[in-house]
Amino acid sequence: MGKRGGSSTKGWAQEPIGALRVGTVGPIADFDPDSTPGFDGDRRLGEELLTERGEVLAGLQELLFANGRAGDHRSVLLVLQGMDTAGKGGIVRHVGGLLDPQGLSVKGFGKPSPEELSHDFLWRIRKALPPAGRIGIFDRSHYEDVLPVRVHSLVPQSEWEARYDIINRFEHELVDTGTTIVKCALVVSKDEQKTRLAERLDRPDKYWKYNPGDLDERAYWDDYREAYQAIFDRCDSDASPWYMIPANRKWFSRLAICELLIDALSGLDLHWPAAEFDVDAEKKRLAALPD
Amino acid sequence: MGKRGGSSTKGWAQEPIGALRVGTVGPIADFDPDSTPGFDGDRRLGEELLTERGEVLAGLQELLFANGRAGDHRSVLLVLQGMDTAGKGGIVRHVGGLLDPQGLSVKGFGKPSPEELSHDFLWRIRKALPPAGRIGIFDRSHYEDVLPVRVHSLVPQSEWEARYDIINRFEHELVDTGTTIVKCALVVSKDEQKTRLAERLDRPDKYWKYNPGDLDERAYWDDYREAYQAIFDRCDSDASPWYMIPANRKWFSRLAICELLIDALSGLDLHWPAAEFDVDAEKKRLAALPD
Repeated sequence: MGKRGGSSTKGWAQEPIGALRVGTVGPIADFDPDSTPGFDGDRRLGEELLTERGEVLAGLQELLFANGRAGDHRSVLLVLQGMDTAGKGGIVRHVGGLLDPQGLSVKGFGKPSPEELSHDFLWRIRKALPPAGRIGIFDRSHYEDVLPVRVHSLVPQSEWEARYDIINRFEHELVDTGTTIVKCALVVSKDEQKTRLAERLDRPDKYWKYNPGDLDERAYWDDYREAYQAIFDRCDSDASPWYMIPANRKWFSRLAICELLIDALSGLDLHWPAAEFDVDAEKKRLAALPD
Repeated sequence: MGKRGGSSTKGWAQEPIGALRVGTVGPIADFDPDSTPGFDGDRRLGEELLTERGEVLAGLQELLFANGRAGDHRSVLLVLQGMDTAGKGGIVRHVGGLLDPQGLSVKGFGKPSPEELSHDFLWRIRKALPPAGRIGIFDRSHYEDVLPVRVHSLVPQSEWEARYDIINRFEHELVDTGTTIVKCALVVSKDEQKTRLAERLDRPDKYWKYNPGDLDERAYWDDYREAYQAIFDRCDSDASPWYMIPANRKWFSRLAICELLIDALSGLDLHWPAAEFDVDAEKKRLAALPD
């Protein structure tokens, strides 16, 4: 290990970090949630690759964790956003599930509590940042404060307008202090969302995932699209990039995000930390001990 | 789902909860870390079963999580203790790794920080308890305060002596408020520990797991045994049971703990929560919407 994991070329005609970056894929209004940008393979290959590349990802995670133990302050943060049913939970389960739970920190951000609302909007976010050596996953994030908050005018426009710059400065600080940020917006189509909502209503084991409010949100589809486009236009940078992940094919969104994480971790150029003790002296001490 | 997952009978001559309970297996001084109490199968069957039973466990976890979302306050807490190299981290990775990270909360307890030491010993434990609907794993726990603390007399005897009762009342409270507790002591043999420590010194990718202090602790092996026996004698009850898990065969310790968790979750008699909305009315609303 320790060498760049790089991107797998198998199945990919173009590197995922290029193929999926918001600037490359163009406006969300023209984006096809059925597409598999950069990837030529089919579902079967995609699923095979997820298993194979999941091991590469887990290996890199262990390296990151080992370095964290040795005093390296770096961490990786995956930010997930997406409309209801886009599959954020599935990413946590099927990509997060490839990782060692010990080195993973998952945080979901729902409607803010009264205590959270009594602080600035980044307060609850800062508290949940991944510790050194960990991969953090945010299931929703500070971008909620410029998505539903903007769509529903939960604060005055002057307030949410100011947040784009605040977010950029916040993320700049995170990057400067050692956090590699990967931001993924899962984009599901309106008809696929309808199918997935219908499934939740058809299966008693899925009722708990259904919220009547989700239907109301569909009425704001175009407003959400505009709000998403605004975060791509204003909060995407090489240091803190946004990716659009087509989410109609779950196998693809999982594979794509796995590859984006591998790329992020590979960029840290991690090596096994040197021993902080005298290896030969310890070997002698151990050999001298009774069994 | 929703029916008791029960124990798999395949490979097991005796239910793990009976075969591994501290009262059944007898004193730790006579315990064989190479044994596989209650299990007749070999490694190959054990590994096969872990995959198969892991799916049962994950299904039960989803039920617990769904109920947590629906207002059920119950949770499950797995407490892991064990000497260095006993494989606590491996349990987090290979048993915790069977679960959805969204419904899992992992917390490791190292040497207490100055802030933690300025509070009572349960302060940091309470803060890390799993939320409703989650499975929590403690990698070390409040038992550290009667294990190394006792062995090295880090507090006066009168203080650690009092902790057994304090722990019992604390756990009683947890059980009363809806937490199912499963406590597992991973028991590795002294020679197997030596082998594992030697491996850490032979492989640069394992150096980060090695701590010269671990060798010093070996000198206290018998004192630790005594301290473990004391927690089994004083802090084991049907409501908050202790299990001794032989840890020389990693495949067995993983399978055994997976079964103990399945048993704990099955005991909650979970069913999919009823819809908190009018299913037919929602179906009609959905059907009336444009695609």
